[in-house]
Amino acid sequence: MRIKLNVEYDGTNYVGWQRQKNGTSVQQMLEDAFFAASGQRVGITGAGRTDAGVHAQGQAAHLDTDTTIPPEKLSFAMNAHLPADIKVTNSQEAGGDFHARYGAVAKTYIYTYYNAQHSSAIYRNTTAHVRGEIDVGAMKQAAQHITGTHDFLSFCASGSEVNTTTRTVYRLDIVREKPFLRIEITGSGFLYNMVRIIAGTLLDAGKGKIAADDVKKIIEGRDRSLASPTAPARGLVMKQVYYDDAEF
Amino acid sequence: MRIKLNVEYDGTNYVGWQRQKNGTSVQQMLEDAFFAASGQRVGITGAGRTDAGVHAQGQAAHLDTDTTIPPEKLSFAMNAHLPADIKVTNSQEAGGDFHARYGAVAKTYIYTYYNAQHSSAIYRNTTAHVRGEIDVGAMKQAAQHITGTHDFLSFCASGSEVNTTTRTVYRLDIVREKPFLRIEITGSGFLYNMVRIIAGTLLDAGKGKIAADDVKKIIEGRDRSLASPTAPARGLVMKQVYYDDAEF
Repeated sequence: MRIKLNVEYDGTNYVGWQRQKNGTSVQQMLEDAFFAASGQRVGITGAGRTDAGVHAQGQAAHLDTDTTIPPEKLSFAMNAHLPADIKVTNSQEAGGDFHARYGAVAKTYIYTYYNAQHSSAIYRNTTAHVRGEIDVGAMKQAAQHITGTHDFLSFCASGSEVNTTTRTVYRLDIVREKPFLRIEITGSGFLYNMVRIIAGTLLDAGKGKIAADDVKKIIEGRDRSLASPTAPARGLVMKQVYYDDAEF
Repeated sequence: MRIKLNVEYDGTNYVGWQRQKNGTSVQQMLEDAFFAASGQRVGITGAGRTDAGVHAQGQAAHLDTDTTIPPEKLSFAMNAHLPADIKVTNSQEAGGDFHARYGAVAKTYIYTYYNAQHSSAIYRNTTAHVRGEIDVGAMKQAAQHITGTHDFLSFCASGSEVNTTTRTVYRLDIVREKPFLRIEITGSGFLYNMVRIIAGTLLDAGKGKIAADDVKKIIEGRDRSLASPTAPARGLVMKQVYYDDAEF
């Protein structure tokens, strides 16, 4: 039986989603919790691999099991063995052809800046601090160049191995609720560090370091060095994963 | 010279605002940071004493000093010696008659419930988890009995010593942004645990455990045992302190 999980986590204390030798990953915590609950060792496949310090409200994952725990009770059974910074928010039976990674048709990420004189105490792990005036209009103008289907090679961390660097950004909204400044982005898929490089580049447009129209040239240049620095991991949340075109 | 500070903190790791023997308080951290920055030992007086686990976005405080550090630079100087979960968000010179506690004419607190099947990983320290259906309309009706000037003895933790238990609640709003349910309350002042007991009582109204009109009887009964249990500390944030009637 294939089970779909929805997972929320505060990524602050983890090396990221994926199992690694140098620290504790969210994937490992979930696999260990499933073992503690069911006595079965299974692999859990996530929709996307979030980096160290990146959070998720709607990570999706799947696993195969013949446990007698009813699918919808599995979230409770696993949460009993998980620390407070990881929660299985939903568990349900999925069709045998459901695949958390390959079945995803779109994802939404949210990047949050905290725009104030001092960084935030309460939101220290979930926002990136930025001082000074930010021109949200300029950010919105810059964002218009990013929506649509493009080769996003300039927004991809070097060294990543992918077949194609073409992706489609369906929506890109800039929402200001002082002192928060949120970048909400929905796309067919994202290259390694793509959202954080977009966040860094849009911020530079907002700070007047680049013109809004420069973003067009950055995309056309197909060179990572043209775009701005990668924004810090802590400001990023994987908000939702979509498996049905009608959903988003 | 008297200095006014605004302070934000995540109260999770502290015994509360006030200095205590059994652990680290926010007040102590601020006094130590001021000493580290200026070489002067001063007492810092807060607008209100938040409990262990309670947070603040807009705690206000004052201190007297003859330091040569310019008042508006003091926030930076102190933050250099504070952990990431405490921030002085603003520092400025105040008149000699300014008093953070006695000068406060009103305060706003926000209490946040997280209404979902499972508690939140990301918001685990800043929300109180509650399962099941909540009737926001019933909460709003119940809230109408609380606004205004009343003897709030029923909403005061027993053992507190105060001259009068009469307070005025100027505003009380219930805001639902699923899965969050926020209670925003502004009053002339609050008795010990008053906001958390109001939050617990309004929740019981929302869950149908009590009728909205029971709140009127609870107030008139002047007996703590009539009101609902105190809601957990982690859901409470001291949002703002007002020193001028025109401000709120």
